[in-house]
Amino acid sequence: MSATNNKPVLRVIFLGGVGEIGKNMTALELGEDIVVIDCGSTFPGGDMPGVDLVIPDPTYLLENKDKVRGIVLTHGHEDHIGGLPYILKDLNVPVFGTELTIAILEAKLREAKINAKLNVIKPQSVVPLGKFKVEFVNVSHSIAGSCALAISTPLGMVFHTGDFKVDYTPVQGNIIDLSRIAELGKQEVLLLLAESTNVERPGFTLSETAVGKSINGILQENTESRVFVTTFASNIHRLQQLVDLAAKYKRKVVFAGRSMLNIVDCAQRIGELKIDSQNLVDVDDVNKYDDKELMIITTGSQGEPMSALTRIANDESKIKLHYNDLVIISASPIPGNERMIYTVINNLYRHGAKVIYESLAEVHASGHACREELKLIHSLIRPKYFIPVHGEHRHQKKHADLAISMGMRPSNIIITDIGDVVEIGTKGFRLCERVQSGALLVDGLGVGEVGSLVLRDRKHLAQEGALITAICVDKSAGEVKKIEMTSRGFAYTTDTDELLEAAKDIVKDVFIGLDIKAQEDWNNAKTSLRKELKNFVFRKTKRNPMIITQILEV
Amino acid sequence: MSATNNKPVLRVIFLGGVGEIGKNMTALELGEDIVVIDCGSTFPGGDMPGVDLVIPDPTYLLENKDKVRGIVLTHGHEDHIGGLPYILKDLNVPVFGTELTIAILEAKLREAKINAKLNVIKPQSVVPLGKFKVEFVNVSHSIAGSCALAISTPLGMVFHTGDFKVDYTPVQGNIIDLSRIAELGKQEVLLLLAESTNVERPGFTLSETAVGKSINGILQENTESRVFVTTFASNIHRLQQLVDLAAKYKRKVVFAGRSMLNIVDCAQRIGELKIDSQNLVDVDDVNKYDDKELMIITTGSQGEPMSALTRIANDESKIKLHYNDLVIISASPIPGNERMIYTVINNLYRHGAKVIYESLAEVHASGHACREELKLIHSLIRPKYFIPVHGEHRHQKKHADLAISMGMRPSNIIITDIGDVVEIGTKGFRLCERVQSGALLVDGLGVGEVGSLVLRDRKHLAQEGALITAICVDKSAGEVKKIEMTSRGFAYTTDTDELLEAAKDIVKDVFIGLDIKAQEDWNNAKTSLRKELKNFVFRKTKRNPMIITQILEV
Repeated sequence: MSATNNKPVLRVIFLGGVGEIGKNMTALELGEDIVVIDCGSTFPGGDMPGVDLVIPDPTYLLENKDKVRGIVLTHGHEDHIGGLPYILKDLNVPVFGTELTIAILEAKLREAKINAKLNVIKPQSVVPLGKFKVEFVNVSHSIAGSCALAISTPLGMVFHTGDFKVDYTPVQGNIIDLSRIAELGKQEVLLLLAESTNVERPGFTLSETAVGKSINGILQENTESRVFVTTFASNIHRLQQLVDLAAKYKRKVVFAGRSMLNIVDCAQRIGELKIDSQNLVDVDDVNKYDDKELMIITTGSQGEPMSALTRIANDESKIKLHYNDLVIISASPIPGNERMIYTVINNLYRHGAKVIYESLAEVHASGHACREELKLIHSLIRPKYFIPVHGEHRHQKKHADLAISMGMRPSNIIITDIGDVVEIGTKGFRLCERVQSGALLVDGLGVGEVGSLVLRDRKHLAQEGALITAICVDKSAGEVKKIEMTSRGFAYTTDTDELLEAAKDIVKDVFIGLDIKAQEDWNNAKTSLRKELKNFVFRKTKRNPMIITQILEV
Repeated sequence: MSATNNKPVLRVIFLGGVGEIGKNMTALELGEDIVVIDCGSTFPGGDMPGVDLVIPDPTYLLENKDKVRGIVLTHGHEDHIGGLPYILKDLNVPVFGTELTIAILEAKLREAKINAKLNVIKPQSVVPLGKFKVEFVNVSHSIAGSCALAISTPLGMVFHTGDFKVDYTPVQGNIIDLSRIAELGKQEVLLLLAESTNVERPGFTLSETAVGKSINGILQENTESRVFVTTFASNIHRLQQLVDLAAKYKRKVVFAGRSMLNIVDCAQRIGELKIDSQNLVDVDDVNKYDDKELMIITTGSQGEPMSALTRIANDESKIKLHYNDLVIISASPIPGNERMIYTVINNLYRHGAKVIYESLAEVHASGHACREELKLIHSLIRPKYFIPVHGEHRHQKKHADLAISMGMRPSNIIITDIGDVVEIGTKGFRLCERVQSGALLVDGLGVGEVGSLVLRDRKHLAQEGALITAICVDKSAGEVKKIEMTSRGFAYTTDTDELLEAAKDIVKDVFIGLDIKAQEDWNNAKTSLRKELKNFVFRKTKRNPMIITQILEV
């Protein structure tokens, strides 16, 4: 302990949000103190069928439970707070965030029946956590109450941007606190952790108010249409602009979709979203109003199968589309969601609706800094060391190149992957040993039970289906009494029943070659069965269904 | 027949390529004659697990076999010719296409062991097919030998653009035959069928030669690097530019990937691709050359899992990446492939390679006309009627809007979906009855056997896995002799074995409630079993695995 005090070493532990976009979680460790930044979740990719949610593996934190002083949250997006309902169960430390962040988290924890030590802080506040002092610095982003974190440590200042953009004309709330960021930069900043999402985009992001202007123009030109707008529920400032525009054009607002209603409720309660309740209409009363009197704000901007907009487009909703409908998609597709959202757009068109989306008009603004904004932060912070975060490897690499182009020494930059630990201290700035980390899969009530074996089986079943056989054996008599054979998710060129009958003969042949009376367990028999059936089916069909065998000894 | 002759009716039958991108197939029918334009295939979406290929349902053509005079091909891309190996089996009519198109098709048919009546035609040729006369008109596209079709009928001319762009500076071959298109337009064109892929993009597409210039610049700046370029194998003119650039910079060319080798072979054989064989190196000899002496041209521009580039990025290839490698992705992601290709790019970066892709440099040019090119064709052709094709519904809708903005009457435009039939004749221009159509799924040796039931089972298995039980029953004794229970692709929070044991008790309970001796078939017993097991498992795990039961009566 005294050695540590003499020569303190700061460890930055990457448990999420590097080498990928999503489920962000980073920990800072110094001697006996750990502070955790964010704890997000992400949706599973196509290679994880049936999985509900993916969260960071918290093993390292659980093993060092006694050191964890608290979790600080940059903002209330799922990829920054979505893991908390699962992780707080075993790691019940104080959590700190701004008002909206905590309000959203509170609703999630209530649903999961978890009591947590939640603390609302205001931007500019400083929270002491062991040897760390965490200052929350207001930034612009696509959700209200977003902060960067200036964390002072005995070795110097660590500045983590969180997710941010530079919006000089935000909708409400304070402008990004550039003067405080500049002030911090004038002191010495040891380490910058900055997000990399939009590093491939030149220039500056569109201001949030520009989106309002675009949508205003669209409403002006479509006074007779019924208007739908879909956007991320958490983009409170976008919602505020929509609600204000609705009032301006004498349209009632209808909110559709569960997450939309939840977040609107949170945001209204804390005064972040201001709506005259007279202007709100319940979704059940939609048909009582004329087209031109309505603005329907819905979930589904990513084409999510169960969302309000998708159900409307598929004609599965109370709200029926018609030729006078105008749908504004006020969002852009998250990579991987393109097919889903375009399917929704095509179906909207099929029902005669007019659709406006980002490639056609400025109806969405990204919440993530583009290249010139990143350069601004680098030039204000002027850190000694830099680690690009929140990006896939390609983004981190380009963010490193950007820093180098501004004069940073390549040896002062490290690109990390999940599980990496960077140490700053006596031995300089270096990658050291890795810690256990990765993805924990949430599936129904289970957290972490679905592993690679289960996923491998699911993929096999999805690709090829299964051939299932049950064999009843009288061991004492040494004979097969009965064979049943069925298939699921598997189809054959001519007649599947015929194939299954022929497969029974294969089973019989295998048992003829066995000394049934001498079998101790049936493992070898099962192995032979699987092999022979697999070969037989492949020869006949060129397919490889999963072969499942059950032997019932009577 | 005489009535038909007096008042001929032209029917345009959409069997593919509308309401979607891919597996194009359109038929023109006039009295006793049908001519088919293209017969493509497409890759299955994520909602079709295990399916190898999707082709258009040819039922309508098979039912009208005697009328089909021939199949005319606009070009040799998979989405225009990929269905032929499956459809020619039952519909062995003459097929017409340019030299490269037929050469590629021939190789496919050889592999499938199909004899077909293939006919090579030159652009400007006219092929009489019943009452139709089909003229092939040279156009630019991302594969050599692409044509539009000017089809004269007793009712007037039908002009089908095929896939096209307007490239004033193509790599080789003739420029798009705008003067012939203008000439056709001066005569009267009854109907225009024009592709819609890029209707959302303003301006003009980049010329193919501009790509060559960009890559030349990159090679000039990276003389010491080993260079990889990935592109679509069928883009012969891109390959020609790459091969020429390799020669210019004294690099040997290595082709990697099966489809690359196949197409290079076809194109070389017919003289469409010219390579000095001295400059070619086999992939096995890569390590005999210095980095700066090599250009490796690979498949995998879409991040396809088994492609050469993906295997290289995953360290599964003979070719090992190192810090001096430069990879140029000379393609853009087809919607839906974004995640796959970005995963490959991230892995290339992880191995220290430098990667250049479209968002960073002009290393790819689309083969599909942008808005100004579409306008040019509309203004030259000046058709009476217009049907936008080759696009999702949103593209077709915007293409219709483009035509209206140029002065077409909305009533002279019809937006179609697969299965629609448009009639032109006595009753004007109208949608009439639909024909059987849709997607036929190719799965192993089977064509069309995988249907919605099999896909539904596969999706269920992928999402939830299966719980499989076999029950041996002695009917005459009226007793259950043995129960086996297993699971696949299914995981439980604590202990799956424990859950399976408890589930056996559920089975026992169901049988206690049954009069075993009285069972005729076991259908009711199976229904009860499924219901009780489903409820039990859901209560315990909040999951819904597929319940598969087999009853063995001894």
